[in-house]
Amino acid sequence: MTEKLSEATRGPLLDPLFQSGWALVEGRDAIAKTFSFTSFVDAFGWMTKVAIWAEKWNHHPEWSNVYNRVDVLLTTHDVNGLSALDAKLARKMDKLA
Amino acid sequence: MTEKLSEATRGPLLDPLFQSGWALVEGRDAIAKTFSFTSFVDAFGWMTKVAIWAEKWNHHPEWSNVYNRVDVLLTTHDVNGLSALDAKLARKMDKLA
Repeated sequence: MTEKLSEATRGPLLDPLFQSGWALVEGRDAIAKTFSFTSFVDAFGWMTKVAIWAEKWNHHPEWSNVYNRVDVLLTTHDVNGLSALDAKLARKMDKLA
Repeated sequence: MTEKLSEATRGPLLDPLFQSGWALVEGRDAIAKTFSFTSFVDAFGWMTKVAIWAEKWNHHPEWSNVYNRVDVLLTTHDVNGLSALDAKLARKMDKLA
């Protein structure tokens, strides 16, 4: 079952993501990062890989794309905030980038 | 060569798009539309088809996706406004949706 991150779990799960460029979003319990690629094909190719994992895990990003740039925001609507799924998808996005 | 739409060409190219749900964007010479699908797979599948045409025509949308919804904005950066390419890509998006 998906649960909102507790105070005890936030640090261990989120700190490594802050080191890799993720940041908390103002006004929402969410994390965001901008990914830049060398071309639209690379950007959308990455989105396609992420999309398959997102669907597999039934956890989808809010994201926008302009040419070689993808802005991503992750949060878990079911718990109205960050859950372990967000950290898991963020790590996957980093790994695929 | 891509040229900004003239007053004479705007109506014939844009009016049919306004009929299909496209609208002018405030503050930018651009058109926008929200596409809704029945699932993330359908939304992203549509984006993938559009992405291939966008790359083929070297004309890329500004777009964002949240689950089954895709918000699209089209404009032509090279001419700082709408060109025939935007109308062409908009028609393709409608056809593929």
